[in-house]
Amino acid sequence: MLSTGGCPKTMLSIKDALDAVEGRWKLLILFSLSEGPKRFKQLAREVSGITDKTLSKELKSLEANKLVLRQVHDTFPPTVEYSITPHGMSLEKVIDELHFWGLAHRKEVIGQ
Amino acid sequence: MLSTGGCPKTMLSIKDALDAVEGRWKLLILFSLSEGPKRFKQLAREVSGITDKTLSKELKSLEANKLVLRQVHDTFPPTVEYSITPHGMSLEKVIDELHFWGLAHRKEVIGQ
Repeated sequence: MLSTGGCPKTMLSIKDALDAVEGRWKLLILFSLSEGPKRFKQLAREVSGITDKTLSKELKSLEANKLVLRQVHDTFPPTVEYSITPHGMSLEKVIDELHFWGLAHRKEVIGQ
Repeated sequence: MLSTGGCPKTMLSIKDALDAVEGRWKLLILFSLSEGPKRFKQLAREVSGITDKTLSKELKSLEANKLVLRQVHDTFPPTVEYSITPHGMSLEKVIDELHFWGLAHRKEVIGQ
Protein backbone atom coordinates (compact mmCIF):
# COMPACT_ATOMS: atom_id res chain seq x y z
CA MET A 1 0.00 0.00 0.00
CA LEU A 2 1.34 3.42 -0.88
CA SER A 3 1.95 5.27 2.34
CA THR A 4 -0.34 8.18 1.52
CA GLY A 5 -2.73 6.26 -0.77
CA GLY A 6 -5.36 8.50 -2.31
CA CYS A 7 -4.54 11.63 -0.23
CA PRO A 8 -5.91 14.63 -2.21
CA LYS A 9 -2.97 16.89 -1.31
CA THR A 10 -0.42 14.33 -2.43
CA MET A 11 -2.45 13.84 -5.59
CA LEU A 12 -2.07 17.54 -6.33
CA SER A 13 1.71 17.44 -6.27
CA ILE A 14 1.76 14.28 -8.39
CA LYS A 15 -0.50 16.11 -10.83
CA ASP A 16 1.90 19.10 -10.89
CA ALA A 17 4.76 16.76 -11.70
CA LEU A 18 2.79 14.92 -14.38
CA ASP A 19 1.75 18.20 -15.98
CA ALA A 20 5.40 19.23 -16.27
CA VAL A 21 6.64 15.94 -17.73
CA GLU A 22 3.49 14.57 -19.37
CA GLY A 23 3.62 12.60 -22.56
CA ARG A 24 6.08 10.02 -23.66
CA TRP A 25 8.88 12.33 -24.78
CA LYS A 26 9.86 14.91 -22.17
CA LEU A 27 11.63 12.57 -19.78
CA LEU A 28 13.43 10.90 -22.69
CA ILE A 29 14.65 14.29 -23.93
CA LEU A 30 15.84 15.17 -20.43
CA PHE A 31 17.55 11.81 -20.10
CA SER A 32 19.37 12.42 -23.38
CA LEU A 33 20.41 15.93 -22.28
CA SER A 34 21.66 14.61 -18.95
CA GLU A 35 24.70 13.40 -20.91
CA GLY A 36 25.53 16.97 -21.91
CA PRO A 37 24.31 19.90 -24.04
CA LYS A 38 23.10 18.96 -27.51
CA ARG A 39 22.05 20.49 -30.80
CA PHE A 40 18.49 20.00 -32.09
CA LYS A 41 19.48 17.51 -34.79
CA GLN A 42 21.53 15.47 -32.37
CA LEU A 43 18.56 15.23 -29.99
CA ALA A 44 16.22 14.29 -32.84
CA ARG A 45 18.57 11.41 -33.69
CA GLU A 46 19.04 10.15 -30.15
CA VAL A 47 15.43 10.29 -28.98
CA SER A 48 14.40 7.66 -31.49
CA GLY A 49 10.92 7.90 -32.95
CA ILE A 50 10.34 11.59 -32.25
CA THR A 51 9.46 13.92 -35.13
CA ASP A 52 11.11 17.34 -35.54
CA LYS A 53 7.76 19.03 -34.97
CA THR A 54 7.13 17.20 -31.70
CA LEU A 55 10.70 17.71 -30.49
CA SER A 56 10.40 21.43 -31.13
CA LYS A 57 7.10 21.62 -29.23
CA GLU A 58 8.40 19.55 -26.32
CA LEU A 59 11.57 21.62 -26.00
CA LYS A 60 9.49 24.80 -25.77
CA SER A 61 7.35 23.27 -23.01
CA LEU A 62 10.46 22.05 -21.15
CA GLU A 63 11.96 25.55 -21.42
CA ALA A 64 8.76 27.11 -20.02
CA ASN A 65 8.98 24.73 -17.07
CA LYS A 66 12.66 25.67 -16.52
CA LEU A 67 13.79 22.12 -17.16
CA VAL A 68 15.77 22.92 -20.30
CA LEU A 69 17.90 25.92 -21.25
CA ARG A 70 18.12 27.08 -24.87
CA GLN A 71 21.31 28.97 -25.69
CA VAL A 72 22.15 30.77 -28.91
CA HIS A 73 25.88 30.93 -29.55
CA ASP A 74 27.32 33.85 -31.50
CA THR A 75 29.00 31.82 -34.24
CA PHE A 76 28.79 31.95 -38.06
CA PRO A 77 26.09 30.81 -38.63
CA PRO A 78 24.59 31.14 -35.12
CA THR A 79 24.23 27.79 -33.36
CA VAL A 80 21.61 26.77 -30.85
CA GLU A 81 22.28 24.36 -28.02
CA TYR A 82 19.96 22.80 -25.48
CA SER A 83 21.06 21.82 -21.99
CA ILE A 84 19.37 20.44 -18.90
CA THR A 85 18.95 22.85 -15.96
CA PRO A 86 19.67 21.98 -12.31
CA HIS A 87 15.88 21.78 -11.87
CA GLY A 88 15.72 19.31 -14.77
CA MET A 89 18.52 17.29 -13.19
CA SER A 90 16.43 17.05 -10.03
CA LEU A 91 14.18 14.65 -11.96
CA GLU A 92 17.02 12.12 -11.76
CA LYS A 93 15.33 9.94 -9.13
CA VAL A 94 12.03 9.91 -11.03
CA ILE A 95 13.87 8.83 -14.18
CA ASP A 96 15.90 6.22 -12.29
CA GLU A 97 12.77 4.69 -10.76
CA LEU A 98 11.04 4.68 -14.16
CA HIS A 99 14.08 2.89 -15.58
CA PHE A 100 14.01 0.18 -12.92
CA TRP A 101 10.27 -0.21 -13.22
CA GLY A 102 10.48 -0.33 -17.01
CA LEU A 103 12.86 -3.29 -16.76
CA ALA A 104 10.46 -5.12 -14.42
CA HIS A 105 7.48 -4.23 -16.59
CA ARG A 106 9.15 -5.68 -19.67
CA LYS A 107 9.53 -9.00 -17.84
CA GLU A 108 5.98 -8.90 -16.45
CA VAL A 109 4.00 -7.92 -19.52
CA ILE A 110 5.99 -7.49 -22.70
CA GLY A 111 8.34 -10.41 -22.14
CA GLN A 112 5.54 -12.92 -21.78
CA MET B 1 24.70 13.98 -14.03
CA LEU B 2 22.43 10.97 -14.32
CA SER B 3 24.59 7.90 -13.87
CA THR B 4 23.71 6.36 -17.23
CA GLY B 5 22.98 9.64 -19.05
CA GLY B 6 21.79 9.06 -22.61
CA CYS B 7 22.48 5.29 -22.68
CA PRO B 8 20.25 3.85 -25.45
CA LYS B 9 19.45 0.65 -23.52
CA THR B 10 18.38 2.57 -20.44
CA MET B 11 16.34 4.84 -22.69
CA LEU B 12 14.46 1.77 -23.94
CA SER B 13 13.31 0.73 -20.48
CA ILE B 14 12.33 4.30 -19.61
CA LYS B 15 10.33 4.30 -22.85
CA ASP B 16 8.62 1.02 -21.85
CA ALA B 17 7.65 2.55 -18.53
CA LEU B 18 6.40 5.77 -20.11
CA ASP B 19 4.34 3.83 -22.64
CA ALA B 20 2.60 1.98 -19.81
CA VAL B 21 1.87 5.04 -17.70
CA GLU B 22 1.79 7.81 -20.32
CA GLY B 23 -0.55 10.74 -20.06
CA ARG B 24 -1.56 12.69 -17.05
CA TRP B 25 -4.13 10.29 -15.64
CA LYS B 26 -2.86 6.73 -15.25
CA LEU B 27 -0.60 7.33 -12.27
CA LEU B 28 -3.30 9.39 -10.56
CA ILE B 29 -5.81 6.55 -11.05
CA LEU B 30 -3.29 4.06 -9.64
CA PHE B 31 -2.57 6.37 -6.73
CA SER B 32 -6.27 6.58 -5.95
CA LEU B 33 -6.65 2.79 -6.18
CA SER B 34 -3.66 2.27 -3.88
CA GLU B 35 -6.06 3.20 -1.08
CA GLY B 36 -8.27 0.23 -1.87
CA PRO B 37 -10.66 -1.15 -4.56
CA LYS B 38 -13.12 1.37 -5.94
CA ARG B 39 -16.20 1.64 -8.14
CA PHE B 40 -16.08 3.62 -11.38
CA LYS B 41 -18.09 6.55 -10.06
CA GLN B 42 -15.97 6.79 -6.95
CA LEU B 43 -12.80 6.95 -9.06
CA ALA B 44 -14.34 9.57 -11.35
CA ARG B 45 -15.01 11.73 -8.30
CA GLU B 46 -11.60 11.31 -6.68
CA VAL B 47 -9.43 11.79 -9.76
CA SER B 48 -10.60 15.36 -10.16
CA GLY B 49 -10.87 16.74 -13.67
CA ILE B 50 -11.11 13.40 -15.49
CA THR B 51 -14.12 12.75 -17.75
CA ASP B 52 -16.02 9.45 -17.68
CA LYS B 53 -14.92 8.74 -21.23
CA THR B 54 -11.24 9.25 -20.45
CA LEU B 55 -11.45 7.29 -17.20
CA SER B 56 -13.02 4.37 -19.04
CA LYS B 57 -10.31 4.44 -21.71
CA GLU B 58 -7.49 4.74 -19.17
CA LEU B 59 -8.84 1.86 -17.06
CA LYS B 60 -8.89 -0.40 -20.13
CA SER B 61 -5.29 0.50 -20.91
CA LEU B 62 -4.24 -0.08 -17.29
CA GLU B 63 -5.99 -3.45 -17.36
CA ALA B 64 -4.16 -4.42 -20.58
CA ASN B 65 -0.87 -3.58 -18.87
CA LYS B 66 -1.85 -5.69 -15.83
CA LEU B 67 -1.74 -2.67 -13.55
CA VAL B 68 -5.44 -2.73 -12.69
CA LEU B 69 -7.86 -5.61 -12.13
CA ARG B 70 -11.52 -5.27 -13.09
CA GLN B 71 -13.84 -7.52 -11.11
CA VAL B 72 -17.53 -8.10 -11.68
CA HIS B 73 -19.36 -9.09 -8.51
CA ASP B 74 -22.45 -11.31 -8.74
CA THR B 75 -24.86 -8.96 -6.99
CA PHE B 76 -28.26 -7.55 -8.00
CA PRO B 77 -27.57 -5.51 -10.06
CA PRO B 78 -24.03 -6.73 -10.83
CA THR B 79 -21.35 -4.37 -9.51
CA VAL B 80 -17.93 -3.69 -10.98
CA GLU B 81 -14.90 -2.88 -8.89
CA TYR B 82 -11.40 -1.84 -9.86
CA SER B 83 -8.33 -2.66 -7.84
CA ILE B 84 -4.60 -2.17 -8.20
CA THR B 85 -2.53 -5.29 -8.96
CA PRO B 86 0.79 -6.15 -7.26
CA HIS B 87 2.46 -5.06 -10.51
CA GLY B 88 0.63 -1.73 -10.26
CA MET B 89 1.74 -1.40 -6.64
CA SER B 90 5.33 -1.80 -7.81
CA LEU B 91 5.02 1.71 -9.26
CA GLU B 92 5.02 3.00 -5.69
CA LYS B 93 8.58 4.39 -5.84
CA VAL B 94 7.93 6.12 -9.16
CA ILE B 95 4.82 7.75 -7.72
CA ASP B 96 6.64 8.69 -4.50
CA GLU B 97 9.47 10.35 -6.42
CA LEU B 98 6.97 12.21 -8.62
CA HIS B 99 5.22 13.42 -5.48
CA PHE B 100 8.46 14.77 -3.96
CA TRP B 101 9.51 16.32 -7.25
CA GLY B 102 6.06 17.85 -7.75
CA LEU B 103 6.39 19.64 -4.41
CA ALA B 104 9.80 21.04 -5.38
CA HIS B 105 8.54 21.96 -8.84
CA ARG B 106 5.67 23.96 -7.39
CA LYS B 107 8.16 26.01 -5.39
CA GLU B 108 10.54 26.43 -8.35
CA VAL B 109 8.11 27.34 -11.11
CA ILE B 110 4.49 27.63 -10.11
CA GLY B 111 5.12 29.30 -6.76
CA GLN B 112 7.10 32.15 -8.26
